[in-house]
Amino acid sequence: MEKSNIGLIGLGVMGQNLALNLADKGWMVSVWNRQGPGEAESVADRFVRERGKGKSVIACKGLDDFCDTLQRPRVVMLMVTANAVDEVIENVIPYLDEGDIIVDGGNSNFEDTGRRVKELYERGFYFVGAGVSGGEEGALHGASIMPGGAEEAWPVVKPILQSIAAKAEDGTPCCEWIGKGGAGHYVKMAHNGIEYAEMQLIAEVYSLMKRIGNMNNEEMGLLFTHWNETDLRSFLIEITGKILRHRDVTGAYVVDKILDVANQKGTGRWSVQNALDLNEPIGLIAEAVFARDVSGKKQLREKLGRIYSQESNLTLYQRDELVRPLYETLSVSRIVSYAQGFSLLKKASEVYRWNLNLASVALIWRNGCILRSELLNPIAEAFLVNPQLENLLADPFFSKRVKTSLPSWKKVVTMAVKEEVPLPAVSSALHYFYSVTTAHLPANLIQAQRDFFGAHTFERVDEPRGAFFHELWRS
Amino acid sequence: MEKSNIGLIGLGVMGQNLALNLADKGWMVSVWNRQGPGEAESVADRFVRERGKGKSVIACKGLDDFCDTLQRPRVVMLMVTANAVDEVIENVIPYLDEGDIIVDGGNSNFEDTGRRVKELYERGFYFVGAGVSGGEEGALHGASIMPGGAEEAWPVVKPILQSIAAKAEDGTPCCEWIGKGGAGHYVKMAHNGIEYAEMQLIAEVYSLMKRIGNMNNEEMGLLFTHWNETDLRSFLIEITGKILRHRDVTGAYVVDKILDVANQKGTGRWSVQNALDLNEPIGLIAEAVFARDVSGKKQLREKLGRIYSQESNLTLYQRDELVRPLYETLSVSRIVSYAQGFSLLKKASEVYRWNLNLASVALIWRNGCILRSELLNPIAEAFLVNPQLENLLADPFFSKRVKTSLPSWKKVVTMAVKEEVPLPAVSSALHYFYSVTTAHLPANLIQAQRDFFGAHTFERVDEPRGAFFHELWRS
Repeated sequence: MEKSNIGLIGLGVMGQNLALNLADKGWMVSVWNRQGPGEAESVADRFVRERGKGKSVIACKGLDDFCDTLQRPRVVMLMVTANAVDEVIENVIPYLDEGDIIVDGGNSNFEDTGRRVKELYERGFYFVGAGVSGGEEGALHGASIMPGGAEEAWPVVKPILQSIAAKAEDGTPCCEWIGKGGAGHYVKMAHNGIEYAEMQLIAEVYSLMKRIGNMNNEEMGLLFTHWNETDLRSFLIEITGKILRHRDVTGAYVVDKILDVANQKGTGRWSVQNALDLNEPIGLIAEAVFARDVSGKKQLREKLGRIYSQESNLTLYQRDELVRPLYETLSVSRIVSYAQGFSLLKKASEVYRWNLNLASVALIWRNGCILRSELLNPIAEAFLVNPQLENLLADPFFSKRVKTSLPSWKKVVTMAVKEEVPLPAVSSALHYFYSVTTAHLPANLIQAQRDFFGAHTFERVDEPRGAFFHELWRS
Repeated sequence: MEKSNIGLIGLGVMGQNLALNLADKGWMVSVWNRQGPGEAESVADRFVRERGKGKSVIACKGLDDFCDTLQRPRVVMLMVTANAVDEVIENVIPYLDEGDIIVDGGNSNFEDTGRRVKELYERGFYFVGAGVSGGEEGALHGASIMPGGAEEAWPVVKPILQSIAAKAEDGTPCCEWIGKGGAGHYVKMAHNGIEYAEMQLIAEVYSLMKRIGNMNNEEMGLLFTHWNETDLRSFLIEITGKILRHRDVTGAYVVDKILDVANQKGTGRWSVQNALDLNEPIGLIAEAVFARDVSGKKQLREKLGRIYSQESNLTLYQRDELVRPLYETLSVSRIVSYAQGFSLLKKASEVYRWNLNLASVALIWRNGCILRSELLNPIAEAFLVNPQLENLLADPFFSKRVKTSLPSWKKVVTMAVKEEVPLPAVSSALHYFYSVTTAHLPANLIQAQRDFFGAHTFERVDEPRGAFFHELWRS
């Protein structure tokens, strides 16, 4: 009997779609799913009978059968929730042989992945943590895949993972080896951090169009659709255009029926928490995460809204006054979100010794994932030309773009302050830009305060770096 | 032989000063310190011979002697670095008896403290994690002390800790029982988060005075000293006035000699990381932490400064145009930093079931600690009047104050945007205010995007909370 090329554990929507994608690419796939109590037909059987019908997918009853059907070295891919990964690994390991490969395609924390790579290596198995972005659609038709961990596994899983990855316009698969340990899941996490930022930036621009531009959904939707033909072109801009114009059966715009409370699943938060550990400033991404938290305080917002009763005495701006500045603002704020995200990746690469190829990361994100956009090309170019580039804002292409947009950016932030429209992310991006392009910050005063009350010492402008001094401030 | 009332382990500057403070208050104190190799005289002996001379302080050779000298139940206070706490506990425990008390007065993470309280309780000991704020000066003359953990220990340690605490103007000691588990160290952590914010806010106001007000150190110092006689009165404002006017022997202002790279020790970062876990938006505090990280990128800032060559074509503002708006801006931004900090405490109290008394926390901070200020009185009052107060911005005193300051706040943020002066914290505070007082945020669009690409569902404005819907956006 012919053996399967890969086994897939976990038949949620993502797992099902990946299995179908694998089968479509010519791989023989064994599938298994934990069985709920009292289910007559197994999840795997039903999947093969329904969506997997006529495809090279084999349903397995138990993990023993499942592992028996796999060619060696076995490749077992997990598509289970992050908190189930350890348990599933322990359950499947008794049926594996030394040298077999486990691929975690879920949203695991990179630190867990790093630990698993190490522990399983010591037990004779190769563990790969593969970040998979693109949602259900990407899983079925081509995702952006970020594998990292035990590099010995890469030659085996490479043809499989690259076959189900999205392809960039030039035909390159959006899947390359990222690095050892938890590097793959880390890059996915940073991707999601930038994703939070981009979504918040778009939301803020939308709120200005709506509140001070008085634009209706149709106008806004058409504008985003038009922007999708400019250098703003991206998946998120594209779907924003579609969302704004989308109506339900009654003809009502669905976006207006949605409660303004945004949820989150954790990768944005993880990015910020890790950036704090690495001393990497990603304030824009942090503000985007916190904006979702503020949105959750709906009752408080309503209550404070009454207390401060912001009268709607907003100035209404003409479309022409607004559209171009908003376009420039979104363009430049997005660049800052990538500047912060890639700076974080660079720092992580140094701290964890991953030797990340940042150009390659940008190339992988060109298609399949939520961030997919035209902008990834010049980003990749910037890191190809200068692999040591410390910050995207130092790249000539981007510095030129930022300089062009700066007047509009300032204008939009000023408008929002005047009209009392919250713009936490766009505004944080601007102040980050000011901070990081300023040779002299007021941090000397902070160091003086710390030395005053805690004798924490300071460096001096007239002494070499690394020499620390204490002043007797009270004398 | 008379037994000691308390034993103190760890004779760094903080430990020494606490020992002297204890002795001054009439307690008999045994001290012990880990011995470095090749030191002829023990650290404890030298301390008793020098700073402890003639005081009720006993130097002990080993932990066995040390514990022998203590009356029972023993109170052993640790003043050691956070990463040494577990080891020191294990070293001392063999010489303790059931019911003895260990107090950690260092800067431990609240999660470690919670774990230690539980583990030691099971082993028969009472562990207290006491946040101590006030630096060396506070340790010697009166600190703000935030004890939490095993409540059985409180009657024993209360007279000791309250005696060495600072006293508020009304004579109340700035030390009260905070709550179980890691509550004490958590409150200290939140204190430090607010401290980061206040220091950054002052630094930003200073940078505006200097860069667009062209004020010299003497003028700025006098202004802060004057502000210390207004409702801005606080320790940080006071020392800022002193710092700005402080000269070295050559007559040069020391603040101008200090490198603009601000360091940090961790508690600010922890506050933000925990706030992210609790979904509590503290963007102002986050921006303050990140501002220190940006300051650390000195070379990058110099390089980007050249690329973007911000010409110093700043408008110079008249003193009168600036001073009042800056005063109002600092006042209102500080209120936001407390609003975020106390909102975090409230959420933590709910999540960890600490039943924190927020009025009591404000009262404890009135003296001894870095945050000590007049502002703590109305904050305590707000939570006394309404212990369920969700956000300080909802309190009548503070909403009135914020409304008064809003025009100045907007003016200052607008100036900074125009003149390209980084104002990340002040600006984040303003956009937080806008966000949290807005009944309708653009988060509906974010939910639509999440539902579009990930089928994450959304709530509707026309359906009860808790009901989730999915839209077929592509149809």
